[in-house]
Amino acid sequence: MIIVMSPGTKEKEVKQVENRLRELGFATHVIVGEEKTVIGAIGDKSALNSEGILNMPGVENVVPIMKPYKLVSRELKKKSSIIQIGDVKIGGTDLVVMAGPCAVESEEQLLEAAHAVKQAGATVLRGGAFKPRTSPYAFQGLEEEGLKMLAEARRQTGLAVVTEIVDTRDVELVARYTDIMQIGARNMQNFRLLREVGQTGKPVLLKRGMSATIEDWLMAAEYIMAAGSHDVILCERGIRTYETAVRNTLDISAVPVVKELSHLPIIIDPSHATGYAKYVPALAKSAVAVGADGLIIEVHPNPSRALCDGPQSLNPGQFNALMQDLHGLARFVGKRLPACSFHSEGQNRAI
Amino acid sequence: MIIVMSPGTKEKEVKQVENRLRELGFATHVIVGEEKTVIGAIGDKSALNSEGILNMPGVENVVPIMKPYKLVSRELKKKSSIIQIGDVKIGGTDLVVMAGPCAVESEEQLLEAAHAVKQAGATVLRGGAFKPRTSPYAFQGLEEEGLKMLAEARRQTGLAVVTEIVDTRDVELVARYTDIMQIGARNMQNFRLLREVGQTGKPVLLKRGMSATIEDWLMAAEYIMAAGSHDVILCERGIRTYETAVRNTLDISAVPVVKELSHLPIIIDPSHATGYAKYVPALAKSAVAVGADGLIIEVHPNPSRALCDGPQSLNPGQFNALMQDLHGLARFVGKRLPACSFHSEGQNRAI
Amino acid sequence: MIIVMSPGTKEKEVKQVENRLRELGFATHVIVGEEKTVIGAIGDKSALNSEGILNMPGVENVVPIMKPYKLVSRELKKKSSIIQIGDVKIGGTDLVVMAGPCAVESEEQLLEAAHAVKQAGATVLRGGAFKPRTSPYAFQGLEEEGLKMLAEARRQTGLAVVTEIVDTRDVELVARYTDIMQIGARNMQNFRLLREVGQTGKPVLLKRGMSATIEDWLMAAEYIMAAGSHDVILCERGIRTYETAVRNTLDISAVPVVKELSHLPIIIDPSHATGYAKYVPALAKSAVAVGADGLIIEVHPNPSRALCDGPQSLNPGQFNALMQDLHGLARFVGKRLPACSFHSEGQNRAI
Amino acid sequence: MIIVMSPGTKEKEVKQVENRLRELGFATHVIVGEEKTVIGAIGDKSALNSEGILNMPGVENVVPIMKPYKLVSRELKKKSSIIQIGDVKIGGTDLVVMAGPCAVESEEQLLEAAHAVKQAGATVLRGGAFKPRTSPYAFQGLEEEGLKMLAEARRQTGLAVVTEIVDTRDVELVARYTDIMQIGARNMQNFRLLREVGQTGKPVLLKRGMSATIEDWLMAAEYIMAAGSHDVILCERGIRTYETAVRNTLDISAVPVVKELSHLPIIIDPSHATGYAKYVPALAKSAVAVGADGLIIEVHPNPSRALCDGPQSLNPGQFNALMQDLHGLARFVGKRLPACSFHSEGQNRAI
Repeated sequence: MIIVMSPGTKEKEVKQVENRLRELGFATHVIVGEEKTVIGAIGDKSALNSEGILNMPGVENVVPIMKPYKLVSRELKKKSSIIQIGDVKIGGTDLVVMAGPCAVESEEQLLEAAHAVKQAGATVLRGGAFKPRTSPYAFQGLEEEGLKMLAEARRQTGLAVVTEIVDTRDVELVARYTDIMQIGARNMQNFRLLREVGQTGKPVLLKRGMSATIEDWLMAAEYIMAAGSHDVILCERGIRTYETAVRNTLDISAVPVVKELSHLPIIIDPSHATGYAKYVPALAKSAVAVGADGLIIEVHPNPSRALCDGPQSLNPGQFNALMQDLHGLARFVGKRLPACSFHSEGQNRAI
Repeated sequence: MIIVMSPGTKEKEVKQVENRLRELGFATHVIVGEEKTVIGAIGDKSALNSEGILNMPGVENVVPIMKPYKLVSRELKKKSSIIQIGDVKIGGTDLVVMAGPCAVESEEQLLEAAHAVKQAGATVLRGGAFKPRTSPYAFQGLEEEGLKMLAEARRQTGLAVVTEIVDTRDVELVARYTDIMQIGARNMQNFRLLREVGQTGKPVLLKRGMSATIEDWLMAAEYIMAAGSHDVILCERGIRTYETAVRNTLDISAVPVVKELSHLPIIIDPSHATGYAKYVPALAKSAVAVGADGLIIEVHPNPSRALCDGPQSLNPGQFNALMQDLHGLARFVGKRLPACSFHSEGQNRAI
Repeated sequence: MIIVMSPGTKEKEVKQVENRLRELGFATHVIVGEEKTVIGAIGDKSALNSEGILNMPGVENVVPIMKPYKLVSRELKKKSSIIQIGDVKIGGTDLVVMAGPCAVESEEQLLEAAHAVKQAGATVLRGGAFKPRTSPYAFQGLEEEGLKMLAEARRQTGLAVVTEIVDTRDVELVARYTDIMQIGARNMQNFRLLREVGQTGKPVLLKRGMSATIEDWLMAAEYIMAAGSHDVILCERGIRTYETAVRNTLDISAVPVVKELSHLPIIIDPSHATGYAKYVPALAKSAVAVGADGLIIEVHPNPSRALCDGPQSLNPGQFNALMQDLHGLARFVGKRLPACSFHSEGQNRAI
Repeated sequence: MIIVMSPGTKEKEVKQVENRLRELGFATHVIVGEEKTVIGAIGDKSALNSEGILNMPGVENVVPIMKPYKLVSRELKKKSSIIQIGDVKIGGTDLVVMAGPCAVESEEQLLEAAHAVKQAGATVLRGGAFKPRTSPYAFQGLEEEGLKMLAEARRQTGLAVVTEIVDTRDVELVARYTDIMQIGARNMQNFRLLREVGQTGKPVLLKRGMSATIEDWLMAAEYIMAAGSHDVILCERGIRTYETAVRNTLDISAVPVVKELSHLPIIIDPSHATGYAKYVPALAKSAVAVGADGLIIEVHPNPSRALCDGPQSLNPGQFNALMQDLHGLARFVGKRLPACSFHSEGQNRAI
């Protein structure tokens, strides 16, 4: 931590800051520049209880030097984490594709989607049973009924299942039916939910908040890891900017930045990032080329009648065509789209 | 709702869209322009289940005409709502000032703050018992102990109490100790929490999310009202922008915009909006002049040692000086700073 | 400047960075922390040619400590600048109000507006002769004819005149007809224009760019001052954010931030900040209360027929009513709306 | 154009708006909904002089239906434009790579860079002779001397040359020495410069402004095309957002969006988009995969000593390695990296 003092600060004020820093457990180191004095504060205390220093006389600015996260950081763990769920591996050379409808609407709709995405080569099924909707009057999900349908789809297809959780009271329920628990963008800083979900020890898909910095996002992952789950998958899904041509702005740079700062795998959600099915294939390709560990894509048997996110859902034919393209592209960046064999009860699809 | 068709759309496609709209319960009205055809869809169905239409052949864009909210809207209720909590009125000619520390740290700290802000003319005491912190290693609040201290401070000062709730499981607990339940910026779209809090029927202070549009925010208020609480106080606390000179960017325009769209009262939090105590007084004055119904301000007996938000907290002397300024300014815009007499057990301060 | 080295950096790399810094004229000071080493670089060299250091082996980050501007900074000049144009003073206790149409459309329109705003108490007339329009097909201004009309309006009313310049080739022409040369938001980083306008030595109204940080903006002012004009008036006119309820988001905090960092006066443009006439009065009041040195407001004799910016223009009656409100408010914050007597040929209006 | 009237609007007000629309040359079409009345205004007038309608009594909102641009739009020209400069084709199956230093610093530096990028397979040389720098004290470019060095580099390597122009007074000069004239992000709405550059009829590289919407950007291209140049190359270079981990946020979605809306080619600048050399290769790959027509990349013989943009510059070895990767990737998306043979005086590099 570097404390920058205002020009013309009195020596007494510098001393007071030094004293306060020592009281907090830091060693101090003063550098007197031509116009300003700066104080280096050394010690593994992080800046936790020291932010009030900014309010001391003569202090102009406080510049943190240490990263605020530890467990998620690549400084701690050099090797990239690989998260294994059944036969599905996330974070290594396999490119994971999660696909399915925004919301579970009925058993028929879900099963049709599940078989279609399995057929096309996806290895994880997505589908929301609890839907956080902007309007209280919109379809809010089938809740436990939806979870049961997801379990049935898993049984039939062998796909792993990821579904969103929105309430601490549902942790046990959702954990029972799902392989990966999803924290949505709107709950990325619902710290209680992060902690409770982390305590289950299950794999967690952590979507980036709509206006979360990468640091905010890694801190949210740190909450989950600190609570006990080491299997956090980060998911970039577009951030809020001034541009209105698309629903959100996909922050493609997040992939190399996260890969540098953290050992955790990162996937991309091109469906929420754009909000329009027509842009999904191009963005999915860019995600693979930039080095993402996977994709999560909305697929609906009949997008124009979807109860949720219809405009951004691919139909099964479009999804299948995209998967063909991704096969070749994945090989080019040293990855592969695996055949699915997770809990599979039928025959595997040859790839 | 207006459906804009692409140039060169076939008549058959227009018909299909019309049919789908009628199926959804809308009356339709086609306007053939020189280059594009648009379809007006009439009916009080809102755009709820009709967004998938964007995925139909020939559809270029769907433009909603109706607002997505009802209960919060001024179209429904022309007269501004006044929320009464004991003797405190929010939304009328009284200017409400809520003040106190970011977090309840100890009984001593809280009581010192409470007496100081009461002395200066505040009528509501703020203080967090459950703190949503970016870092899992930071102070997370005293929880129920903190709530008890707030209740004691209320007993001693007669101030009403507002405190944040972060988990659906705590609704009953927090409701027992507080007069106003606060939904923080990070939970503005924690829809379950909105619903549960709304069901208590208690007054709710709803902070604007960090990157929530005004429409998103009003929709969150709609959730609370739809669940049963009619006493929602909106709180603008700065939004996330590219500017880094301050912690957030206070969106001062939100006040006249909200006043036009909604009957609900709106207050401003200049402390979170800037993150620096030195800017709080100027912003507090601008908030009063723009027509806000009140302020919520962080005040700490010793900001440089605060466990949370020290840099943005005023000390009691600074807060008192600001309140003196606000008295005159409030009168100028047709408002007044009331004396506090809520549950008061001591004598009131003459103003 | 502080150079932060990566954890595990070799001593040799630290030495190389130190050597490079000394070569650039800095004294260096190494602090070895528990996990990271930082190097303090001392010397009044600013970070100008040293940014490439970030590319040296082992360097994780470079943190500037010194501000990049000098002439505009309050560190250099403690006393707030007052800019005098005839009898108009900007930056002291007088609150300057600049008003008039977006574009000069005709002599009749301009004179009607000029007399109206003078009558209501404005002391500077605004009006564009060169209009930077988003569309090449939109009205681009009357150019020199417009400048002549502005000069005639000044002759008749005694108001000072501010008008925008958009091309380095017009500097002499515009300087001949105007009292204050305006640099618009879109040209805030047209550095050639800044330099040329600065070389005239005339007062300059510098609008903040649509996505300029306060530091970018002060650097643009530094260009003008470095070129020779010391009379720079900063103008906050809203920044681009994700919010769409208004045209731009007025960054009201910019006023106290600029007042702290710089000695230059700052005014607010509530018309461009919102884009809607209905919100202008509330924002104008907040601007005065926050401590701005003045306002620039669009006034048109007939806004619904304006060739430019009609939706955000007040009509003369609305402007007059606003000015009545501002009189009282200005007094409250220790300012006053002066009577205009600049080059006045008629009688002054008593205030 | 759709005019939305407020609920409860009087018939007389609807009539007034209809009359005004007819006066402006529109046919009108009134739809009376259950709560609101909307007026469809038909006619190819665009919304140019009709924005003032928003200020008429009873008008709540005006929704444009037609795009504001024509010449750049794919509605006008279905086939993608291919821009030919010597043997370099931009917009077809060739993937154009422009590379070179941020600024021309010396003949030696430029020639070293030019030969290196040519060797690696680039076909266009970039290099700034006029540098728009945030600080007036930073290196501003070698001006005409720099242009001469670019011409010499072209002579020696056969590379086409792109360089930035920042002042209308330099149009003739820059046009004399360059193949493609670049409009930088800061001048994207310097409409005079757009017009003058367009009038030369030369190819123009138009960078997206830092906070320009895609529509703003296409309107800037419309300016150039309306002035006479049909050879506009769009360049996405990152937009300003709240994220600070990178210098700007690369808006990768801009590629499919622009491809849908316009026939013009679009390339990506991963160097400015991130500001860090370490992230450039990953983003360059994502750009190719998403379907961009090319790249512009900063390459400097010695980045840590560059006078400008050192942190984001690749050295020749890094650039060469990236080009090897792009060869394979380009083939995968149906493009190819052509051998350069523009005005070439030496032998071509076999690919």
